[in-house]
Amino acid sequence: MNHTHVALLTDYGMNDEFVGVLKSVIIDAAPHAQITDISHGVAPFDVRGGSLMLARAVQYVPKGLIIAVVDPGVGTARRAIAVEVAGGDGILIGPDNGLLAPAVAMAGGAERAFELSNTSLHLEAPGATFAGRDIFAPVAAYLLNGGRIDDVGVQLDVDSLMPGLIPLPGEVNDDSYGAGVKCEVTWVDTFGNCQLNVGADDVAHMPSALRVVLGDDVRRASIVRTYAEIQTGALGLVIDSYGMLALSMDRASAAESLKLGVTDEVWLFPYGDEPDPSQTTRVGIRK
Amino acid sequence: MNHTHVALLTDYGMNDEFVGVLKSVIIDAAPHAQITDISHGVAPFDVRGGSLMLARAVQYVPKGLIIAVVDPGVGTARRAIAVEVAGGDGILIGPDNGLLAPAVAMAGGAERAFELSNTSLHLEAPGATFAGRDIFAPVAAYLLNGGRIDDVGVQLDVDSLMPGLIPLPGEVNDDSYGAGVKCEVTWVDTFGNCQLNVGADDVAHMPSALRVVLGDDVRRASIVRTYAEIQTGALGLVIDSYGMLALSMDRASAAESLKLGVTDEVWLFPYGDEPDPSQTTRVGIRK
Amino acid sequence: MNHTHVALLTDYGMNDEFVGVLKSVIIDAAPHAQITDISHGVAPFDVRGGSLMLARAVQYVPKGLIIAVVDPGVGTARRAIAVEVAGGDGILIGPDNGLLAPAVAMAGGAERAFELSNTSLHLEAPGATFAGRDIFAPVAAYLLNGGRIDDVGVQLDVDSLMPGLIPLPGEVNDDSYGAGVKCEVTWVDTFGNCQLNVGADDVAHMPSALRVVLGDDVRRASIVRTYAEIQTGALGLVIDSYGMLALSMDRASAAESLKLGVTDEVWLFPYGDEPDPSQTTRVGIRK
Repeated sequence: MNHTHVALLTDYGMNDEFVGVLKSVIIDAAPHAQITDISHGVAPFDVRGGSLMLARAVQYVPKGLIIAVVDPGVGTARRAIAVEVAGGDGILIGPDNGLLAPAVAMAGGAERAFELSNTSLHLEAPGATFAGRDIFAPVAAYLLNGGRIDDVGVQLDVDSLMPGLIPLPGEVNDDSYGAGVKCEVTWVDTFGNCQLNVGADDVAHMPSALRVVLGDDVRRASIVRTYAEIQTGALGLVIDSYGMLALSMDRASAAESLKLGVTDEVWLFPYGDEPDPSQTTRVGIRK
Repeated sequence: MNHTHVALLTDYGMNDEFVGVLKSVIIDAAPHAQITDISHGVAPFDVRGGSLMLARAVQYVPKGLIIAVVDPGVGTARRAIAVEVAGGDGILIGPDNGLLAPAVAMAGGAERAFELSNTSLHLEAPGATFAGRDIFAPVAAYLLNGGRIDDVGVQLDVDSLMPGLIPLPGEVNDDSYGAGVKCEVTWVDTFGNCQLNVGADDVAHMPSALRVVLGDDVRRASIVRTYAEIQTGALGLVIDSYGMLALSMDRASAAESLKLGVTDEVWLFPYGDEPDPSQTTRVGIRK
Repeated sequence: MNHTHVALLTDYGMNDEFVGVLKSVIIDAAPHAQITDISHGVAPFDVRGGSLMLARAVQYVPKGLIIAVVDPGVGTARRAIAVEVAGGDGILIGPDNGLLAPAVAMAGGAERAFELSNTSLHLEAPGATFAGRDIFAPVAAYLLNGGRIDDVGVQLDVDSLMPGLIPLPGEVNDDSYGAGVKCEVTWVDTFGNCQLNVGADDVAHMPSALRVVLGDDVRRASIVRTYAEIQTGALGLVIDSYGMLALSMDRASAAESLKLGVTDEVWLFPYGDEPDPSQTTRVGIRK
């Protein structure tokens, strides 16, 4: 199977030449490559954040290669790997530090894995800190040009790959609020929506109005399907585009308003029958 | 007519996977698509800012499709639309919230419009918040693959489309300064240039030196053709690349220096014959 | 030789439509063009920073055209130029303000140069401030469509081109520390690594532990090959991916920690035999 598409996900940012040089190396060797940037906005060094982004995106990415790089251990003994999934429809290339693991799982699990130990495929470089340019890109180009994955290096036991870290929700009991769900913020997007690691199903046993406990800050939020259903200034729990609950506001940043960040813990309880203290006249736009 | 080009403009930013996933959906279904990003840096929820950017860019965009998404009402009853312009040379796809309207007008006006009500073309999704991925991208791919615009949904009366909001300049009279032009900042670019909603023609009856009134702050600025004609530290009114006047400084941010932002009001008066109080020895570089 | 590839480097940023419009002009006229963004994140007006980025990237860029724009003098008498290098394998297009010079030197030097004085190839525009759109992009499209470089305008003496400014390291003598190397920060990347204008060879006569003098702030840093070799919280001198020394920390920003910026002066001395005052128990991750 000859792939032509490469998707890229890194923490390189857009201000330096890193992304452009990585792409240049691919295109120089494989001019027919079609490249799609998933994003290069992973927070620097944030392997978990990058792995979750890749897991969210992977189901939409066209068949072919994925190069993912969030790699604080670049140049050390951490392995550089290529992982084959879905009967060869996908090959994920990157560091073996857990970054690829959730996406590999989403794609049905690793079928074969190889360490990129065949250094004859790599670029010579004066330093060891840019594996994207010197290892991942030329190996991807090799595969795009019809090279076999068996040639990239020694085959690995897929069970030896570094697992990813997916935070799981838990249970919590509170004297005042009863039984609830303990979860955490897994992603703050550019709009300030704070995705939680619970889906609508996980709170299906609760009413649609929930008590949201953020440390000392206790709020009320209803589960809704659109941002516009949230009253201006109020907090909502939107079922987001991945089916997860996200703490959101209408045309405002929930993250900023609540001072919430990734990994912050959130407790959800049924709100019960008390009136909503924040209930105000609706002042929405275009409703 | 079979289009191959899609231009994209959103407020998705570059830090999340939104843009990458939208593109992935297009390319997965229509691998021959040629995609150009106009920008994804519209301020979150800023429909007016996005509509003005699209209107500025549209005259340069190749024939084909445009997907534009600044869509705080995503998932609500606001319509998702496709608007045909220029005898079918262009099709603009996005929310019917005024975002597309100024660009449609720039392209000669809407010839046909359709609501994207044919849900069989959309992606199934666990949430309603990502119309770019689930509606706009797959509909675009359908059109790129030779699908007819008539199939995307029910035809709309083009007069029923939400109009855009283009701020118009006005007149102002001041006891001290006489008759002037009241305008506003429509765009602050990355260099800090503050575009106004007046062109050079609108002030052709005035001298080339203008009094710029920004609330209590009164400045002198000359109309010039290049940033380098503005003295270091002084304010200028550059005829920008769209023929509009922009408050600018040489190698510095006028927005930051003047604390100016989008929608801020600016009054322009003739400066008259008084000497320029800020006149200093020119200390430009390379002049 | 018919080129199809264009690499882009600008200070346009990603928030406005500048990059998208420049690309649109190219693709509209030359739909077969293959465009790679080196970066658009050069700091506004920073000709030196842009020139150094271009020089770092140029060795990896595919054969073809490069458009580079950091151009505070846009619209003035500064020349717009096209410079041919490497027997025609590369053509660099941009302002004649030193931006292209280091990359041209890296590519073997200018073989022919032309002023973009043939205005019949340019776009008509209502203002003079967007040469990328109105001059560089249409000239690039002309060349991509098989146009001859001789047609873009009058040939220039390559010796008349504006040279670039590459900071060279020097020597320094300190009463306490002895003979050392005086260098400066040439680049702060997105991770906070501070590249210096000295390579590992330049300090080969020194021990691998160096005394780093940053004004009143004196640190110890060892020369290492990977970020992970730097102790948590300590400072290192990594041999970076271009073979230069960079002041770095492990999973943290050296620039932020040291309050270092581009052009800041750094002195390097041998550390000698004193014990490392900052030596602490290693608390690395995965080591």
